[in-house]
Amino acid sequence: MPRHSLSAAKLELETHYQRVRQQSVDLVSRLSDADATLQSMEDASPAKWHLAHTTWFFETFLLIPLKSDYAIFDDRYNFLFNSYYDNVGTRHARPQRGMISRPSLEEVLDYRQHVDAAIMARLTSDELDKGLMKLGVAHEEQHQELLLTDILHAFAQNPLMPAFRAPEPLAVHDDMPEAGWTEHQGGPVTIGADPADFHYDCEGPRHDQLLTPFRMKNRAVTCQEWLEFIEDGAYANPLIWLSDGWAEVQKQGWTAPLYWYRKDNEWRTMTLRGEQAVDPQAPVCHISYYEADAFARWTGHRLPTEFEWEALASSSSLDGNNLSSDRFRPAPQKGLEMMGLFGDVWEWTMSAYLPYPGFKPAAGAVGEYNGKFMCGQMVLRGGSCVTPPGHIRSSYRNFFHPEKRWQFSGLRLADDI
Amino acid sequence: MPRHSLSAAKLELETHYQRVRQQSVDLVSRLSDADATLQSMEDASPAKWHLAHTTWFFETFLLIPLKSDYAIFDDRYNFLFNSYYDNVGTRHARPQRGMISRPSLEEVLDYRQHVDAAIMARLTSDELDKGLMKLGVAHEEQHQELLLTDILHAFAQNPLMPAFRAPEPLAVHDDMPEAGWTEHQGGPVTIGADPADFHYDCEGPRHDQLLTPFRMKNRAVTCQEWLEFIEDGAYANPLIWLSDGWAEVQKQGWTAPLYWYRKDNEWRTMTLRGEQAVDPQAPVCHISYYEADAFARWTGHRLPTEFEWEALASSSSLDGNNLSSDRFRPAPQKGLEMMGLFGDVWEWTMSAYLPYPGFKPAAGAVGEYNGKFMCGQMVLRGGSCVTPPGHIRSSYRNFFHPEKRWQFSGLRLADDI
Amino acid sequence: MPRHSLSAAKLELETHYQRVRQQSVDLVSRLSDADATLQSMEDASPAKWHLAHTTWFFETFLLIPLKSDYAIFDDRYNFLFNSYYDNVGTRHARPQRGMISRPSLEEVLDYRQHVDAAIMARLTSDELDKGLMKLGVAHEEQHQELLLTDILHAFAQNPLMPAFRAPEPLAVHDDMPEAGWTEHQGGPVTIGADPADFHYDCEGPRHDQLLTPFRMKNRAVTCQEWLEFIEDGAYANPLIWLSDGWAEVQKQGWTAPLYWYRKDNEWRTMTLRGEQAVDPQAPVCHISYYEADAFARWTGHRLPTEFEWEALASSSSLDGNNLSSDRFRPAPQKGLEMMGLFGDVWEWTMSAYLPYPGFKPAAGAVGEYNGKFMCGQMVLRGGSCVTPPGHIRSSYRNFFHPEKRWQFSGLRLADDI
Amino acid sequence: MPRHSLSAAKLELETHYQRVRQQSVDLVSRLSDADATLQSMEDASPAKWHLAHTTWFFETFLLIPLKSDYAIFDDRYNFLFNSYYDNVGTRHARPQRGMISRPSLEEVLDYRQHVDAAIMARLTSDELDKGLMKLGVAHEEQHQELLLTDILHAFAQNPLMPAFRAPEPLAVHDDMPEAGWTEHQGGPVTIGADPADFHYDCEGPRHDQLLTPFRMKNRAVTCQEWLEFIEDGAYANPLIWLSDGWAEVQKQGWTAPLYWYRKDNEWRTMTLRGEQAVDPQAPVCHISYYEADAFARWTGHRLPTEFEWEALASSSSLDGNNLSSDRFRPAPQKGLEMMGLFGDVWEWTMSAYLPYPGFKPAAGAVGEYNGKFMCGQMVLRGGSCVTPPGHIRSSYRNFFHPEKRWQFSGLRLADDI
Repeated sequence: MPRHSLSAAKLELETHYQRVRQQSVDLVSRLSDADATLQSMEDASPAKWHLAHTTWFFETFLLIPLKSDYAIFDDRYNFLFNSYYDNVGTRHARPQRGMISRPSLEEVLDYRQHVDAAIMARLTSDELDKGLMKLGVAHEEQHQELLLTDILHAFAQNPLMPAFRAPEPLAVHDDMPEAGWTEHQGGPVTIGADPADFHYDCEGPRHDQLLTPFRMKNRAVTCQEWLEFIEDGAYANPLIWLSDGWAEVQKQGWTAPLYWYRKDNEWRTMTLRGEQAVDPQAPVCHISYYEADAFARWTGHRLPTEFEWEALASSSSLDGNNLSSDRFRPAPQKGLEMMGLFGDVWEWTMSAYLPYPGFKPAAGAVGEYNGKFMCGQMVLRGGSCVTPPGHIRSSYRNFFHPEKRWQFSGLRLADDI
Repeated sequence: MPRHSLSAAKLELETHYQRVRQQSVDLVSRLSDADATLQSMEDASPAKWHLAHTTWFFETFLLIPLKSDYAIFDDRYNFLFNSYYDNVGTRHARPQRGMISRPSLEEVLDYRQHVDAAIMARLTSDELDKGLMKLGVAHEEQHQELLLTDILHAFAQNPLMPAFRAPEPLAVHDDMPEAGWTEHQGGPVTIGADPADFHYDCEGPRHDQLLTPFRMKNRAVTCQEWLEFIEDGAYANPLIWLSDGWAEVQKQGWTAPLYWYRKDNEWRTMTLRGEQAVDPQAPVCHISYYEADAFARWTGHRLPTEFEWEALASSSSLDGNNLSSDRFRPAPQKGLEMMGLFGDVWEWTMSAYLPYPGFKPAAGAVGEYNGKFMCGQMVLRGGSCVTPPGHIRSSYRNFFHPEKRWQFSGLRLADDI
Repeated sequence: MPRHSLSAAKLELETHYQRVRQQSVDLVSRLSDADATLQSMEDASPAKWHLAHTTWFFETFLLIPLKSDYAIFDDRYNFLFNSYYDNVGTRHARPQRGMISRPSLEEVLDYRQHVDAAIMARLTSDELDKGLMKLGVAHEEQHQELLLTDILHAFAQNPLMPAFRAPEPLAVHDDMPEAGWTEHQGGPVTIGADPADFHYDCEGPRHDQLLTPFRMKNRAVTCQEWLEFIEDGAYANPLIWLSDGWAEVQKQGWTAPLYWYRKDNEWRTMTLRGEQAVDPQAPVCHISYYEADAFARWTGHRLPTEFEWEALASSSSLDGNNLSSDRFRPAPQKGLEMMGLFGDVWEWTMSAYLPYPGFKPAAGAVGEYNGKFMCGQMVLRGGSCVTPPGHIRSSYRNFFHPEKRWQFSGLRLADDI
Repeated sequence: MPRHSLSAAKLELETHYQRVRQQSVDLVSRLSDADATLQSMEDASPAKWHLAHTTWFFETFLLIPLKSDYAIFDDRYNFLFNSYYDNVGTRHARPQRGMISRPSLEEVLDYRQHVDAAIMARLTSDELDKGLMKLGVAHEEQHQELLLTDILHAFAQNPLMPAFRAPEPLAVHDDMPEAGWTEHQGGPVTIGADPADFHYDCEGPRHDQLLTPFRMKNRAVTCQEWLEFIEDGAYANPLIWLSDGWAEVQKQGWTAPLYWYRKDNEWRTMTLRGEQAVDPQAPVCHISYYEADAFARWTGHRLPTEFEWEALASSSSLDGNNLSSDRFRPAPQKGLEMMGLFGDVWEWTMSAYLPYPGFKPAAGAVGEYNGKFMCGQMVLRGGSCVTPPGHIRSSYRNFFHPEKRWQFSGLRLADDI
């Protein structure tokens, strides 16, 4: 079938699919088979697993249901690479993912090519569910970010501190201007994704929320500000912490953000570009919700709700320091106006991850995507320096348990007015 | 000083204080010193500790700050009976509360009399902070309920299954009518306590919430309905559970509500009136949020939000099966209209326990009362069969972690319309 | 039946039985019901439980097997007060023993009287197994010591530090003479109890062991010597510890013997006579095997084997500071000759607790008494300041896991010559 | 320097060194970098780590102490590849060994070549300590076996069950003759290594032990016999287990040897040759001491002591199914005479791993080799199907904690006569 017979929409989807799938492969180009096998904790997965799991998604939800003659690549992979979909059978125990030295990275890449070829061959027909295709691509982008957060965590456990990408020196920065506030007068605001655009089910239904007047800082909290928090003894002062947060500080022995350590009287940090000095002007990163909340209380301000955040973000440009910048770590936010909402660090909000009014999960296995996590987790908004640009939008709701620190998570202050 | 010189307000406060303080003593009248020393898990405290801790509250926040010559009963008690107020110094480790065989129950009752006398002696002067007095009395009522939930848990660990109050046979009940729904048309509703009435800080500020149209069942879910849930294999079906909930089911091996067990082919349960047959018509009790949520999903409905619950409850009578009924366990809710909102069981809502817009904790140590728990817990509304009537109001926000089951917690279904 | 009809042997057994049984009751005379209910850790049991369990032993193994009409006191007690005899049915979970506020201490004492009366009534007949009677009495004495070690541990968890017996000041002591050595020329020695005397099954069969020449210190290691060990940084020096011992030091954070703490620049310790200054001349007590072994290595000496210990002890007097001295804590051993072998502290040996050649456990449930513990535990010899004198003999093999510290355990040095 | 100038002793040592070092490399020839990085539990280490650690031993204890100009390969390796020698500084945490994707397997092999060349270059001089050379080679052989036990454990966690060596079908075997007994008349026997031969420090000093008459089975317990043990309900019968053993059975849920599982109504097992049917005639393998002890008690016999074992083994041929047979799993022992003492499976003895009379650890860091493990572990004797032949001798004392199962451990019955 000649290329030109593809409709514009199909061409766009094909291009999008290929670009995103290639991006995953590019990300692992400098990883060895052994690197790609590492699992450093139960929350994290091997790079190899991410590459296979996203492929399994296309195979399981798009190819296998087809009437046509798709040949399953390896029927043992359903057990190995299912993440949490109870609808599609039993699965390999999550904490054991790091034991999968076989299949090799090369075999996983072969698996990807097998599935890609099958998808491409069927794109022009109407066989494939286009909604699921878009969901699969979004899912792949989500796992690109997870792959990067997870490989950083794994490399940080190695005393040799391998660099994922070539180290590069810190730029020399001028002084930062004082961060200002942007105000909002409150009242009803419309929250949630436009039904016409691609979005995850949890971003809808669109509905109104009543806000009271508030303001939000024009930039994220910086490492310099965090150093002041540390120096003020914040990690040893129970009065500024949530009860569960203080328990976690003591249990884990936290005294600084994840990956920070002292060396020769200097604060340094492990990054995807190897070990680096802490950049005082860059947004602080790898902090838990508990730390974000304690910092806000320490300043006398608070975190924004996810609705306040969305109210101010929905009219902002989506540009920012994301995966496409190839920087792989947060950059200073130096303007006077509101900036950095999209990129650099995911921003903890004070909203629990709960269903919007009228929320119903999608039918079938993909309905397990979001709804079953709606308890005990907090919403983060914006996107980070390792979020693929196609995965950034103002209605996007990221969510993690409040004690997690391995994501590229930071904060921005808000307040009532 | 003659009685009649007390103002009406002071008289009322005195009467209230004395009645509530006496109620605590009455509750332990049939407990031995050993009973009152038991701590069955970290979440629970000994009866003796509850009696002393509420007394410590009056001593620490009302008497010690006085300029006058109050004599501290025992200066080692501040360490023993502080619960979690970091402002007032170090405290005894919570899991070790069960080691306090000394002071004896009798000594603790002496401590109570010492403090009561000191309070009474100063009531007519203006020395005592009346707001803190009311808070202290409310705090005492709250601990009366905790004392009962905790002693039930402790007695349930004893193979002899002691009864807190004399066992009494189940009433014979007629058939239950089918439970109907009460509807609400949505729109803005006012949420939160009237500032003029006594309330905890977390019940304010009063503000509006936008509701979408919904309905709520006229009664709480019954044991009969729960038995159907069990018999349908719900505890073995991952598809109806939250992700964290399913993990908890497997970790804890849950197959029924807390205190239920099978004996001679019958479901039985431990209660404050000793072991009893499960009453099919009574509201189900001692379930976690995870179970409440799974039950709702299994029925195709959902839990109400705390705002929906308050919208329907704010115009209801506060009457119900509470501590004043001396029943000490839930009773069938048999009417056709909305009933049982107040009493029988605390009802899990789908709302996370978060601050209302503009919330600021009270200044000083009592400001640690609520705000520091605003993460990771879910709101329950209404009150239970062991809640003192003075502790029941439509704006009251109870909260527990979603895996907790030892409270008198149940559920009521809601739905969108 | 007239008294004088009792044979001398029966009279002696009766007297012995009554004296030992009364001793248990005397020990708890100043404990409250709540004190007697405390269980401070899984290894320990409530005083009430010890009183009931030893009674259960007589009821289960002596009275119930009788053809005659013995009336069981309470048939639920078999479940509550069986310790570990799998032959006689299921039992209450050990970590839950502290939940038994009912039966009360008074009811347990009634249980004792019931069983004592039944035993006494049958003593003159030949119904009762005299071997089991002696075993039951020895078992009771063993639990007297455990009751004391356990109540000390429980009281040590209470910040008020209750004293089991009235505190008494330290005696003023003259200087200690230097401790000398007693030598043994090695060769074959006979080990194990005389079959004609009462002993536990693990003390036999009597057999020969080949010893190489060795010497043993004339007294146990003192607190003064232990202070030097501490001050030399021993608790921070991995080179002197067994591998498992060093892991335990780090896991538990040990820096001194159990119950020792610093206060106002002085070493103090919790004892059965309340808190006390550490007595530099008294034997060190409440140390683990790992600490005993590390101390010995630090000195360049070693611990004795249990065979060496028995070779030197078998000709020594059994006198010493034991329970009959009412001191309830170790006393300085001040002579120049070998002393303190029996009493003051159990002495860790370097022998693992293993069966002697040809060992066969007794038949039936009482055969579970010793044999099933013969793995992973180390032998201690001698007896302590809280061992009943009837429970002290040179062939007695006490045994505990190497990390345990709540027993009255100390050490004595040995060496090759 | 010409080859012929080497003395015969040096030539032999060189040959021995080269053969053993090459053997390690041969063992990993079919492992990928990812395979060699796996660490499946804290007890196990990655293949890569074993290869590097044995090399570190030669570098640290032989090359670095030299006055000459040896160039350290990578000074970060001392931290990474030290196992437990506290004398030579801090080290990488054991549970984190599986995070070392870098250095790669190839770099580790380069490290080996670098060290081998340095050793070879110095062999003819007298610089190198020949005793340490022999110790290093023995240490390398020991780690060859550990590498194999560890890679089996890692592969067993992978649902794909990779085979370390090509699977081969079970041989068809004739019926086994009934196993007979070999008797020993007891009396004093000489135990321990000949001082003139290479041995580990814990194999001496040579000394006499007094034995009572005993007998030992002519072959190890077979899988067929173990199946009868299983079918008799042994894993559910507390009466045949040690107390600690029964606790472990319940905690771990053991119902069969490690690696055994049921599939299609057949007992199968994971091996170094992939998944296989259980061979009823082969010795049972991968059992804990607790299981060995319970089995012996179930039969009415017992395990031998290590002295009994050595008394019968010291005159036996060292031949057997060891690493040199390339079988990689136990083989049926089919003769009528005593056989299989050396090879197939390590045999648990009832002896705790304790120092022989007069034992003193070697001076310096290599003195940490054995002595610090002399508590809480049980002795195994003989060698297994994966023990290098040079590592097998009748005085060899292997030792593991009684709950460990991942070694090639089995048992042989003994009895008193």
